[in-house]
Amino acid sequence: MLFCHGITANSAVFPPLMAGFSDRFTTIAIDQRGHGLSDKPDTGYDASDYADDIAALIKTLGMGRAILVGHSLGARNSATVAVKFPDLVRSVIAIDFTPYIENEVFDALEARVNAGSRPFQDILAVEEYLSNRYPNIPADAIKVRAESGYQQTDDGLRPLASPSAMAQTAIGLRADLVPVYTEVRRPVLIVRGEVSKLVSEAALAKTSRLRPDLPVVVVPGADHYVNEVSPEITLRAITNFIDA
Amino acid sequence: MLFCHGITANSAVFPPLMAGFSDRFTTIAIDQRGHGLSDKPDTGYDASDYADDIAALIKTLGMGRAILVGHSLGARNSATVAVKFPDLVRSVIAIDFTPYIENEVFDALEARVNAGSRPFQDILAVEEYLSNRYPNIPADAIKVRAESGYQQTDDGLRPLASPSAMAQTAIGLRADLVPVYTEVRRPVLIVRGEVSKLVSEAALAKTSRLRPDLPVVVVPGADHYVNEVSPEITLRAITNFIDA
Repeated sequence: MLFCHGITANSAVFPPLMAGFSDRFTTIAIDQRGHGLSDKPDTGYDASDYADDIAALIKTLGMGRAILVGHSLGARNSATVAVKFPDLVRSVIAIDFTPYIENEVFDALEARVNAGSRPFQDILAVEEYLSNRYPNIPADAIKVRAESGYQQTDDGLRPLASPSAMAQTAIGLRADLVPVYTEVRRPVLIVRGEVSKLVSEAALAKTSRLRPDLPVVVVPGADHYVNEVSPEITLRAITNFIDA
Repeated sequence: MLFCHGITANSAVFPPLMAGFSDRFTTIAIDQRGHGLSDKPDTGYDASDYADDIAALIKTLGMGRAILVGHSLGARNSATVAVKFPDLVRSVIAIDFTPYIENEVFDALEARVNAGSRPFQDILAVEEYLSNRYPNIPADAIKVRAESGYQQTDDGLRPLASPSAMAQTAIGLRADLVPVYTEVRRPVLIVRGEVSKLVSEAALAKTSRLRPDLPVVVVPGADHYVNEVSPEITLRAITNFIDA
Protein backbone atom coordinates (compact mmCIF):
# COMPACT_ATOMS: atom_id res chain seq x y z
CA MET A 1 0.00 0.00 0.00
CA LEU A 2 1.71 3.18 -1.21
CA PHE A 3 0.78 6.65 -0.01
CA CYS A 4 1.46 9.70 -2.20
CA HIS A 5 1.19 13.18 -0.72
CA GLY A 6 0.01 16.49 -2.17
CA ILE A 7 2.07 19.33 -3.60
CA THR A 8 4.58 20.87 -1.12
CA ALA A 9 3.89 18.09 1.46
CA ASN A 10 5.83 14.88 2.08
CA SER A 11 5.50 11.35 3.42
CA ALA A 12 5.06 12.54 7.02
CA VAL A 13 1.39 13.46 6.49
CA PHE A 14 0.31 9.82 6.22
CA PRO A 15 1.33 7.83 9.35
CA PRO A 16 -2.01 8.44 11.17
CA LEU A 17 -3.83 6.91 8.19
CA MET A 18 -1.22 4.22 7.53
CA ALA A 19 -1.50 2.97 11.13
CA GLY A 20 -4.97 1.68 10.30
CA PHE A 21 -3.63 -0.61 7.58
CA SER A 22 -0.15 -1.63 8.71
CA ASP A 23 -1.41 -4.72 10.55
CA ARG A 24 -2.26 -6.34 7.23
CA PHE A 25 -0.42 -4.42 4.51
CA THR A 26 3.10 -3.22 3.97
CA THR A 27 2.43 0.50 4.12
CA ILE A 28 4.93 2.87 2.53
CA ALA A 29 4.66 6.63 2.19
CA ILE A 30 6.76 8.23 -0.51
CA ASP A 31 8.57 11.56 -0.64
CA GLN A 32 7.74 12.24 -4.27
CA ARG A 33 10.36 13.89 -6.50
CA GLY A 34 11.01 17.52 -5.65
CA HIS A 35 9.60 17.00 -2.15
CA GLY A 36 10.90 16.04 1.29
CA LEU A 37 14.18 14.15 1.25
CA SER A 38 13.89 12.81 -2.30
CA ASP A 39 15.88 13.98 -5.30
CA LYS A 40 15.01 17.34 -6.79
CA PRO A 41 16.04 17.32 -10.45
CA ASP A 42 15.86 20.60 -12.35
CA THR A 43 13.09 19.35 -14.61
CA GLY A 44 10.64 16.46 -14.89
CA TYR A 45 7.56 17.36 -12.88
CA ASP A 46 4.76 16.26 -15.17
CA ALA A 47 2.26 13.54 -14.30
CA SER A 48 4.19 10.97 -16.31
CA ASP A 49 7.44 11.75 -14.46
CA TYR A 50 5.80 11.27 -11.09
CA ALA A 51 4.01 8.15 -12.32
CA ASP A 52 7.24 6.61 -13.62
CA ASP A 53 8.81 7.03 -10.16
CA ILE A 54 5.90 5.29 -8.44
CA ALA A 55 5.91 2.48 -10.99
CA ALA A 56 9.66 2.01 -10.52
CA LEU A 57 9.18 1.77 -6.76
CA ILE A 58 6.41 -0.84 -7.09
CA LYS A 59 8.64 -2.88 -9.40
CA THR A 60 11.67 -2.51 -7.11
CA LEU A 61 9.67 -3.61 -4.07
CA GLY A 62 8.54 -6.72 -5.96
CA MET A 63 5.61 -7.28 -3.60
CA GLY A 64 2.92 -7.45 -6.26
CA ARG A 65 0.27 -4.97 -7.25
CA ALA A 66 -0.05 -1.90 -5.07
CA ILE A 67 -3.03 -0.15 -3.57
CA LEU A 68 -2.27 3.52 -4.23
CA VAL A 69 -3.60 6.09 -1.79
CA GLY A 70 -3.00 9.57 -3.14
CA HIS A 71 -3.91 13.01 -1.89
CA SER A 72 -4.24 15.85 -4.42
CA LEU A 73 -1.03 15.73 -6.52
CA GLY A 74 -0.65 12.18 -5.23
CA ALA A 75 -4.17 11.30 -6.40
CA ARG A 76 -3.41 12.65 -9.87
CA ASN A 77 -0.17 10.67 -9.93
CA SER A 78 -1.79 7.47 -8.65
CA ALA A 79 -4.53 7.54 -11.27
CA THR A 80 -1.86 8.14 -13.91
CA VAL A 81 0.10 5.08 -12.75
CA ALA A 82 -3.09 3.00 -12.98
CA VAL A 83 -3.43 3.98 -16.65
CA LYS A 84 0.24 3.79 -17.64
CA PHE A 85 1.05 0.65 -15.63
CA PRO A 86 -2.24 -1.17 -14.96
CA ASP A 87 -0.47 -4.42 -14.12
CA LEU A 88 1.30 -2.77 -11.18
CA VAL A 89 -1.86 -1.41 -9.56
CA ARG A 90 -4.61 -3.14 -7.64
CA SER A 91 -6.67 -0.03 -6.97
CA VAL A 92 -6.50 3.71 -6.38
CA ILE A 93 -7.92 5.88 -3.64
CA ALA A 94 -7.95 9.37 -5.16
CA ILE A 95 -8.40 11.93 -2.40
CA ASP A 96 -9.66 15.34 -3.46
CA PHE A 97 -8.33 15.66 -6.97
CA THR A 98 -10.47 15.05 -10.05
CA PRO A 99 -10.73 16.16 -13.65
CA TYR A 100 -12.59 19.41 -14.35
CA ILE A 101 -10.90 21.51 -11.64
CA GLU A 102 -11.53 25.12 -12.65
CA ASN A 103 -8.74 27.44 -13.89
CA GLU A 104 -9.30 29.95 -11.09
CA VAL A 105 -8.85 27.16 -8.55
CA PHE A 106 -5.49 26.33 -10.12
CA ASP A 107 -4.60 30.06 -10.13
CA ALA A 108 -5.24 30.25 -6.39
CA LEU A 109 -3.35 27.01 -5.73
CA GLU A 110 -0.35 28.19 -7.74
CA ALA A 111 -0.26 31.49 -5.86
CA ARG A 112 -0.40 29.68 -2.49
CA VAL A 113 2.30 27.20 -3.50
CA ASN A 114 4.69 29.83 -4.78
CA ALA A 115 4.13 32.11 -1.76
CA GLY A 116 5.23 29.28 0.56
CA SER A 117 8.81 29.25 -0.77
CA ARG A 118 10.26 31.77 1.68
CA PRO A 119 12.32 31.76 4.88
CA PHE A 120 10.79 31.55 8.37
CA GLN A 121 12.42 32.75 11.57
CA ASP A 122 11.72 29.60 13.56
CA ILE A 123 9.47 26.56 13.83
CA LEU A 124 6.72 28.57 15.54
CA ALA A 125 6.63 30.96 12.60
CA VAL A 126 6.28 27.96 10.29
CA GLU A 127 3.44 26.57 12.39
CA GLU A 128 1.66 29.91 12.40
CA TYR A 129 2.01 30.17 8.62
CA LEU A 130 0.75 26.61 8.08
CA SER A 131 -2.18 27.11 10.50
CA ASN A 132 -3.32 30.07 8.44
CA ARG A 133 -2.80 28.24 5.15
CA TYR A 134 -4.58 25.10 6.40
CA PRO A 135 -7.15 26.38 8.94
CA ASN A 136 -8.94 23.05 9.34
CA ILE A 137 -5.92 20.81 9.83
CA PRO A 138 -5.60 19.97 13.55
CA ALA A 139 -2.65 21.39 15.51
CA ASP A 140 -0.86 18.06 15.85
CA ALA A 141 -0.95 17.52 12.09
CA ILE A 142 0.26 21.11 11.52
CA LYS A 143 3.17 20.35 13.84
CA VAL A 144 4.00 17.27 11.77
CA ARG A 145 4.03 19.35 8.59
CA ALA A 146 6.22 22.00 10.21
CA GLU A 147 8.72 19.56 11.67
CA SER A 148 8.95 17.33 8.61
CA GLY A 149 8.85 19.84 5.79
CA TYR A 150 11.49 22.49 6.57
CA GLN A 151 15.26 22.75 6.87
CA GLN A 152 17.64 25.26 8.44
CA THR A 153 19.36 27.55 5.90
CA ASP A 154 21.49 30.69 6.20
CA ASP A 155 18.44 32.96 6.25
CA GLY A 156 16.16 30.78 8.40
CA LEU A 157 13.88 27.77 7.95
CA ARG A 158 12.96 27.04 4.36
CA PRO A 159 10.73 24.35 2.80
CA LEU A 160 12.45 21.08 1.95
CA ALA A 161 10.40 21.06 -1.24
CA SER A 162 12.26 22.71 -4.10
CA PRO A 163 10.69 26.06 -5.12
CA SER A 164 11.41 25.43 -8.80
CA ALA A 165 10.00 21.90 -8.57
CA MET A 166 6.86 23.20 -6.86
CA ALA A 167 6.35 25.87 -9.53
CA GLN A 168 6.71 23.30 -12.31
CA THR A 169 4.49 20.83 -10.48
CA ALA A 170 1.76 23.44 -10.00
CA ILE A 171 1.78 24.12 -13.74
CA GLY A 172 1.70 20.40 -14.47
CA LEU A 173 -1.41 19.96 -12.33
CA ARG A 174 -3.36 21.98 -14.91
CA ALA A 175 -2.95 19.29 -17.57
CA ASP A 176 -6.26 17.76 -18.67
CA LEU A 177 -7.02 14.73 -16.52
CA VAL A 178 -10.07 13.64 -18.52
CA PRO A 179 -8.07 11.17 -20.66
CA VAL A 180 -6.71 9.43 -17.55
CA TYR A 181 -10.17 9.08 -15.99
CA THR A 182 -11.64 7.99 -19.30
CA GLU A 183 -9.05 5.26 -19.71
CA VAL A 184 -8.48 3.98 -16.19
CA ARG A 185 -9.61 0.36 -15.81
CA ARG A 186 -8.46 -0.27 -12.26
CA PRO A 187 -10.93 0.51 -9.44
CA VAL A 188 -10.72 4.12 -8.28
CA LEU A 189 -12.44 5.42 -5.16
CA ILE A 190 -13.08 9.14 -5.55
CA VAL A 191 -12.92 10.90 -2.17
CA ARG A 192 -13.90 14.55 -1.85
CA GLY A 193 -13.96 16.86 1.14
CA GLU A 194 -17.44 18.32 1.43
CA VAL A 195 -16.13 21.89 1.72
CA SER A 196 -13.07 21.41 -0.50
CA LYS A 197 -11.94 24.54 -2.29
CA LEU A 198 -9.98 22.42 -4.76
CA VAL A 199 -12.59 19.96 -6.02
CA SER A 200 -15.88 21.82 -6.43
CA GLU A 201 -19.24 20.07 -6.34
CA ALA A 202 -19.45 20.80 -10.07
CA ALA A 203 -16.08 19.18 -10.79
CA LEU A 204 -17.09 16.05 -8.87
CA ALA A 205 -20.46 15.92 -10.63
CA LYS A 206 -18.79 16.14 -14.04
CA THR A 207 -16.30 13.45 -13.06
CA SER A 208 -19.13 11.17 -11.95
CA ARG A 209 -20.91 11.84 -15.23
CA LEU A 210 -17.70 10.84 -17.07
CA ARG A 211 -17.24 7.70 -14.96
CA PRO A 212 -20.49 6.85 -13.16
CA ASP A 213 -19.07 3.42 -12.30
CA LEU A 214 -16.43 4.83 -9.95
CA PRO A 215 -17.60 4.89 -6.32
CA VAL A 216 -17.61 8.19 -4.49
CA VAL A 217 -17.21 9.20 -0.86
CA VAL A 218 -17.81 12.77 0.30
CA VAL A 219 -16.40 13.46 3.75
CA PRO A 220 -18.67 15.80 5.75
CA GLY A 221 -17.06 19.00 6.98
CA ALA A 222 -13.67 18.16 5.49
CA ASP A 223 -11.85 20.62 3.26
CA HIS A 224 -9.19 19.64 0.70
CA TYR A 225 -6.96 18.04 3.34
CA VAL A 226 -9.34 15.16 3.90
CA ASN A 227 -6.98 12.59 5.40
CA GLU A 228 -5.44 15.06 7.86
CA VAL A 229 -8.75 16.70 8.82
CA SER A 230 -10.84 13.48 9.00
CA PRO A 231 -8.46 10.53 9.27
CA GLU A 232 -11.08 8.24 10.88
CA ILE A 233 -13.69 8.55 8.11
CA THR A 234 -10.95 8.34 5.49
CA LEU A 235 -9.69 5.13 7.07
CA ARG A 236 -13.16 3.60 7.17
CA ALA A 237 -13.96 4.65 3.61
CA ILE A 238 -10.76 3.12 2.26
CA THR A 239 -11.38 -0.03 4.30
CA ASN A 240 -14.90 -0.34 2.91
CA PHE A 241 -13.45 -0.02 -0.58
CA ILE A 242 -10.55 -2.46 -0.38
CA ASP A 243 -12.35 -5.06 1.76
CA ALA A 244 -15.40 -5.37 -0.49
CA MET B 1 -22.09 -14.20 -4.96
CA LEU B 2 -25.80 -14.16 -4.10
CA PHE B 3 -28.35 -12.01 -5.90
CA CYS B 4 -31.56 -10.98 -4.14
CA HIS B 5 -34.40 -9.45 -6.16
CA GLY B 6 -36.93 -6.75 -5.32
CA ILE B 7 -40.52 -7.15 -4.16
CA THR B 8 -42.78 -9.08 -6.62
CA ALA B 9 -39.77 -10.04 -8.79
CA ASN B 10 -37.74 -13.24 -8.73
CA SER B 11 -34.32 -14.69 -9.54
CA ALA B 12 -34.85 -14.33 -13.30
CA VAL B 13 -34.06 -10.60 -13.27
CA PHE B 14 -30.38 -11.18 -12.56
CA PRO B 15 -28.76 -13.41 -15.23
CA PRO B 16 -27.64 -10.46 -17.43
CA LEU B 17 -25.74 -9.05 -14.44
CA MET B 18 -24.57 -12.43 -13.13
CA ALA B 19 -23.01 -13.26 -16.50
CA GLY B 20 -20.38 -10.61 -15.81
CA PHE B 21 -19.20 -12.40 -12.69
CA SER B 22 -19.76 -16.09 -13.32
CA ASP B 23 -16.28 -16.60 -14.76
CA ARG B 24 -14.77 -16.04 -11.33
CA PHE B 25 -17.55 -16.44 -8.76
CA THR B 26 -20.25 -18.97 -8.10
CA THR B 27 -23.25 -16.77 -8.86
CA ILE B 28 -26.62 -17.73 -7.44
CA ALA B 29 -29.86 -15.80 -7.70
CA ILE B 30 -32.49 -16.58 -5.09
CA ASP B 31 -36.27 -16.71 -5.29
CA GLN B 32 -36.85 -15.13 -1.91
CA ARG B 33 -39.70 -16.43 0.27
CA GLY B 34 -43.15 -15.56 -1.04
CA HIS B 35 -41.71 -15.06 -4.53
CA GLY B 36 -41.10 -17.16 -7.66
CA LEU B 37 -40.92 -20.89 -7.03
CA SER B 38 -39.92 -20.68 -3.36
CA ASP B 39 -42.14 -21.47 -0.38
CA LYS B 40 -44.89 -19.03 0.49
CA PRO B 41 -45.64 -19.41 4.17
CA ASP B 42 -48.67 -17.55 5.54
CA THR B 43 -46.55 -15.27 7.71
CA GLY B 44 -42.89 -14.29 8.19
CA TYR B 45 -42.12 -11.45 5.78
CA ASP B 46 -40.09 -9.10 7.94
CA ALA B 47 -36.47 -8.19 7.25
CA SER B 48 -35.24 -10.72 9.80
CA ASP B 49 -37.22 -13.55 8.17
CA TYR B 50 -35.74 -12.81 4.76
CA ALA B 51 -32.28 -12.38 6.29
CA ASP B 52 -32.49 -15.73 8.09
CA ASP B 53 -33.25 -17.46 4.78
CA ILE B 54 -30.24 -15.88 3.09
CA ALA B 55 -27.97 -16.74 6.01
CA ALA B 56 -29.20 -20.33 5.97
CA LEU B 57 -28.42 -20.58 2.27
CA ILE B 58 -24.89 -19.20 2.74
CA LYS B 59 -24.30 -21.73 5.52
CA THR B 60 -25.77 -24.60 3.51
CA LEU B 61 -23.62 -23.76 0.50
CA GLY B 62 -20.51 -23.82 2.71
CA MET B 63 -18.49 -21.81 0.20
CA GLY B 64 -17.38 -19.09 2.59
CA ARG B 65 -18.48 -15.51 2.95
CA ALA B 66 -20.85 -14.23 0.30
CA ILE B 67 -20.93 -11.06 -1.71
CA LEU B 68 -24.59 -10.02 -1.56
CA VAL B 69 -26.04 -8.09 -4.47
CA GLY B 70 -29.52 -6.92 -3.62
CA HIS B 71 -32.05 -4.81 -5.44
CA SER B 72 -34.66 -2.91 -3.43
CA LEU B 73 -36.21 -5.48 -1.05
CA GLY B 74 -33.09 -7.56 -1.73
CA ALA B 75 -30.85 -4.64 -0.77
CA ARG B 76 -32.72 -4.21 2.51
CA ASN B 77 -32.42 -7.95 3.16
CA SER B 78 -28.72 -8.09 2.24
CA ALA B 79 -27.80 -5.22 4.56
CA THR B 80 -29.78 -6.94 7.30
CA VAL B 81 -27.83 -10.18 6.79
CA ALA B 82 -24.58 -8.21 7.06
CA VAL B 83 -25.63 -6.93 10.48
CA LYS B 84 -27.21 -10.12 11.82
CA PHE B 85 -24.59 -12.51 10.40
CA PRO B 86 -21.43 -10.47 9.69
CA ASP B 87 -19.28 -13.59 9.54
CA LEU B 88 -21.25 -14.88 6.57
CA VAL B 89 -20.88 -11.73 4.48
CA ARG B 90 -17.93 -10.32 2.60
CA SER B 91 -19.70 -7.23 1.28
CA VAL B 92 -23.05 -5.87 0.14
CA ILE B 93 -24.09 -4.07 -3.02
CA ALA B 94 -27.32 -2.31 -2.06
CA ILE B 95 -29.12 -1.21 -5.20
CA ASP B 96 -31.70 1.55 -4.80
CA PHE B 97 -32.90 1.03 -1.28
CA THR B 98 -31.68 3.14 1.65
CA PRO B 99 -32.90 4.38 4.99
CA TYR B 100 -35.02 7.55 5.03
CA ILE B 101 -37.39 6.55 2.20
CA GLU B 102 -40.42 8.81 2.59
CA ASN B 103 -43.83 7.52 3.73
CA GLU B 104 -45.55 8.69 0.57
CA VAL B 105 -43.05 6.71 -1.48
CA PHE B 106 -43.95 3.59 0.48
CA ASP B 107 -47.68 4.41 0.02
CA ALA B 108 -47.21 4.51 -3.76
CA LEU B 109 -45.11 1.32 -3.73
CA GLU B 110 -47.69 -0.53 -1.65
CA ALA B 111 -50.50 0.54 -4.00
CA ARG B 112 -48.50 -0.63 -7.04
CA VAL B 113 -47.60 -3.94 -5.43
CA ASN B 114 -51.15 -4.75 -4.35
CA ALA B 115 -52.64 -3.74 -7.70
CA GLY B 116 -50.40 -6.27 -9.44
CA SER B 117 -52.08 -9.27 -7.82
CA ARG B 118 -54.76 -9.86 -10.46
CA PRO B 119 -55.39 -12.17 -13.42
CA PHE B 120 -54.18 -11.42 -16.95
CA GLN B 121 -55.69 -12.85 -20.12
CA ASP B 122 -52.39 -13.88 -21.68
CA ILE B 123 -48.65 -13.23 -21.70
CA LEU B 124 -49.05 -10.19 -23.95
CA ALA B 125 -51.41 -8.63 -21.41
CA VAL B 126 -48.80 -9.26 -18.73
CA GLU B 127 -46.09 -7.65 -20.85
CA GLU B 128 -48.27 -4.63 -21.53
CA TYR B 129 -49.00 -4.27 -17.82
CA LEU B 130 -45.33 -4.59 -16.89
CA SER B 131 -44.23 -2.15 -19.62
CA ASN B 132 -46.53 0.46 -18.14
CA ARG B 133 -45.44 -0.29 -14.60
CA TYR B 134 -41.73 -0.24 -15.51
CA PRO B 135 -41.49 2.19 -18.44
CA ASN B 136 -37.67 2.28 -18.49
CA ILE B 137 -37.00 -1.44 -18.35
CA PRO B 138 -36.05 -2.65 -21.87
CA ALA B 139 -38.46 -4.93 -23.71
CA ASP B 140 -36.28 -8.04 -23.37
CA ALA B 141 -36.11 -7.63 -19.60
CA ILE B 142 -39.89 -7.06 -19.47
CA LYS B 143 -40.32 -10.32 -21.38
CA VAL B 144 -38.14 -12.09 -18.79
CA ARG B 145 -40.28 -10.71 -15.97
CA ALA B 146 -43.49 -11.77 -17.76
CA GLU B 147 -42.30 -15.27 -18.59
CA SER B 148 -40.71 -15.99 -15.22
CA GLY B 149 -43.16 -14.39 -12.83
CA TYR B 150 -46.62 -15.69 -13.78
CA GLN B 151 -48.50 -18.99 -13.75
CA GLN B 152 -51.67 -20.25 -15.44
CA THR B 153 -54.70 -20.38 -13.13
CA ASP B 154 -58.42 -20.99 -13.71
CA ASP B 155 -59.08 -17.31 -14.37
CA GLY B 156 -55.92 -16.54 -16.35
CA LEU B 157 -52.25 -15.76 -15.68
CA ARG B 158 -51.53 -14.67 -12.12
CA PRO B 159 -48.28 -13.65 -10.41
CA LEU B 160 -46.22 -16.46 -8.90
CA ALA B 161 -45.59 -14.16 -5.95
CA SER B 162 -48.17 -14.67 -3.22
CA PRO B 163 -50.53 -11.66 -2.89
CA SER B 164 -50.62 -12.01 0.89
CA ALA B 165 -46.84 -12.32 1.08
CA MET B 166 -46.43 -9.22 -1.10
CA ALA B 167 -48.82 -7.21 1.08
CA GLN B 168 -46.95 -8.22 4.24
CA THR B 169 -43.58 -7.59 2.61
CA ALA B 170 -44.64 -4.11 1.48
CA ILE B 171 -45.62 -3.26 5.07
CA GLY B 172 -42.33 -4.69 6.33
CA LEU B 173 -40.36 -2.44 3.99
CA ARG B 174 -41.51 0.55 6.04
CA ALA B 175 -39.56 -0.58 9.11
CA ASP B 176 -36.82 1.87 10.13
CA LEU B 177 -33.57 0.91 8.39
CA VAL B 178 -31.41 3.43 10.24
CA PRO B 179 -30.31 0.91 12.92
CA VAL B 180 -29.08 -1.51 10.24
CA TYR B 181 -27.08 1.17 8.44
CA THR B 182 -25.74 2.50 11.72
CA GLU B 183 -24.53 -0.91 12.80
CA VAL B 184 -23.31 -2.51 9.58
CA ARG B 185 -19.56 -3.14 9.65
CA ARG B 186 -19.19 -4.97 6.35
CA PRO B 187 -18.50 -2.85 3.23
CA VAL B 188 -21.69 -1.64 1.55
CA LEU B 189 -21.78 -0.03 -1.88
CA ILE B 190 -24.84 2.20 -2.12
CA VAL B 191 -26.15 2.32 -5.69
CA ARG B 192 -28.93 4.73 -6.65
CA GLY B 193 -30.68 5.32 -9.94
CA GLU B 194 -30.39 9.00 -10.78
CA VAL B 195 -34.12 9.34 -11.48
CA SER B 196 -35.28 6.76 -8.94
CA LYS B 197 -38.72 7.38 -7.55
CA LEU B 198 -37.97 5.09 -4.61
CA VAL B 199 -34.72 6.54 -3.26
CA SER B 200 -34.94 10.32 -3.44
CA GLU B 201 -31.87 12.55 -3.56
CA ALA B 202 -32.77 13.61 -0.03
CA ALA B 203 -32.92 10.02 1.23
CA LEU B 204 -29.49 9.28 -0.27
CA ALA B 205 -28.03 12.48 1.18
CA LYS B 206 -29.30 11.61 4.66
CA THR B 207 -27.93 8.08 4.33
CA SER B 208 -24.52 9.43 3.32
CA ARG B 209 -24.64 11.80 6.27
CA LEU B 210 -25.35 8.79 8.53
CA ARG B 211 -22.57 6.69 6.98
CA PRO B 212 -20.18 8.94 5.03
CA ASP B 213 -17.69 6.07 4.85
CA LEU B 214 -19.92 3.98 2.55
CA PRO B 215 -19.10 4.51 -1.14
CA VAL B 216 -21.86 5.66 -3.44
CA VAL B 217 -22.59 5.20 -7.12
CA VAL B 218 -25.40 7.10 -8.86
CA VAL B 219 -26.32 5.63 -12.23
CA PRO B 220 -27.20 8.36 -14.75
CA GLY B 221 -30.64 8.14 -16.29
CA ALA B 222 -31.58 4.99 -14.39
CA ASP B 223 -34.78 4.76 -12.40
CA HIS B 224 -35.33 2.37 -9.49
CA TYR B 225 -34.68 -0.71 -11.64
CA VAL B 226 -30.99 0.06 -11.99
CA ASN B 227 -29.63 -3.38 -12.84
CA GLU B 228 -32.27 -4.05 -15.50
CA VAL B 229 -32.16 -0.54 -17.00
CA SER B 230 -28.36 -0.10 -16.88
CA PRO B 231 -26.77 -3.53 -16.49
CA GLU B 232 -23.42 -2.43 -17.95
CA ILE B 233 -22.77 0.43 -15.53
CA THR B 234 -24.06 -1.70 -12.66
CA LEU B 235 -21.62 -4.43 -13.60
CA ARG B 236 -18.69 -2.03 -13.80
CA ALA B 237 -19.60 -0.33 -10.52
CA ILE B 238 -19.80 -3.65 -8.67
CA THR B 239 -16.53 -4.76 -10.27
CA ASN B 240 -14.80 -1.56 -9.17
CA PHE B 241 -16.06 -2.17 -5.65
CA ILE B 242 -15.17 -5.83 -5.20
CA ASP B 243 -11.86 -5.70 -7.08
CA ALA B 244 -10.43 -2.79 -5.11
